[in-house]
Amino acid sequence: MTNFMDYALKCAKKAQALGEVPIGAVVVKDDKIISTGYNVREKSQDATMHAEIVAIKRACKKLKSWRLDNCDIYVTLKPCPMCAGAIVNARINTCYYGAKNLNDKEDTIEKIFSNPMLLNHSTKLVYHHNQQCQQILSQFFKSKR
Amino acid sequence: MTNFMDYALKCAKKAQALGEVPIGAVVVKDDKIISTGYNVREKSQDATMHAEIVAIKRACKKLKSWRLDNCDIYVTLKPCPMCAGAIVNARINTCYYGAKNLNDKEDTIEKIFSNPMLLNHSTKLVYHHNQQCQQILSQFFKSKR
Repeated sequence: MTNFMDYALKCAKKAQALGEVPIGAVVVKDDKIISTGYNVREKSQDATMHAEIVAIKRACKKLKSWRLDNCDIYVTLKPCPMCAGAIVNARINTCYYGAKNLNDKEDTIEKIFSNPMLLNHSTKLVYHHNQQCQQILSQFFKSKR
Repeated sequence: MTNFMDYALKCAKKAQALGEVPIGAVVVKDDKIISTGYNVREKSQDATMHAEIVAIKRACKKLKSWRLDNCDIYVTLKPCPMCAGAIVNARINTCYYGAKNLNDKEDTIEKIFSNPMLLNHSTKLVYHHNQQCQQILSQFFKSKR
């Protein structure tokens, strides 16, 4: 599991190199990475192009299915509502995230993951602490001040 | 406003013709439609390709900006969490929806729209009842039973 989060962190570093908010994601099935993504909101000028969405779209393409059955996703930062919703919509099993989002004070994300309005599926949300996932973000925001 | 919702309904009918869940969306700026979208999850086999995401991606492309400042979105059905998050991420002003989602029992969507974790922006969410937006969905789900 650590390896997959390390790989997501590698993806985040690619975003960092582009001056994007450094967030990375990988989709895993049967212990293999099937897709990766990193945040390219600025480069693409597309509000939806967060790391998770990029990785999910690629995984769907690879599996030729909008259902990502038996897949997990590893993300360096706790997902935003859009990405949390996309992860559940894609029927992903478990979402592991490496850094907390200190702005999520109302457990909105937990509610999205456990929300019964989203069909007969719920995705597990697991915090898998990774110091570097937090550090890369702190550095980025410090450099912006 | 009615005209824009009618146009969103026209988009929903295109989804219906493809056998997709019939949901349509239009993005409006300065009283003009700048983009449209309809649900193509099955056709694209992409879990993210809901009507709102399609319309937002096109609007970003058209305006060459991930920020859809001074834009509104008209959707035939109350957005899911993914689409609600995307609408706020894109800094859309107001989201008008034509039919309620009876599965949203916990105001999850309202919380996403008013969630302060999403930066310095909140999008207004306005229910603009349209009988046909509901009917086209009811017919679709009845035909699936």
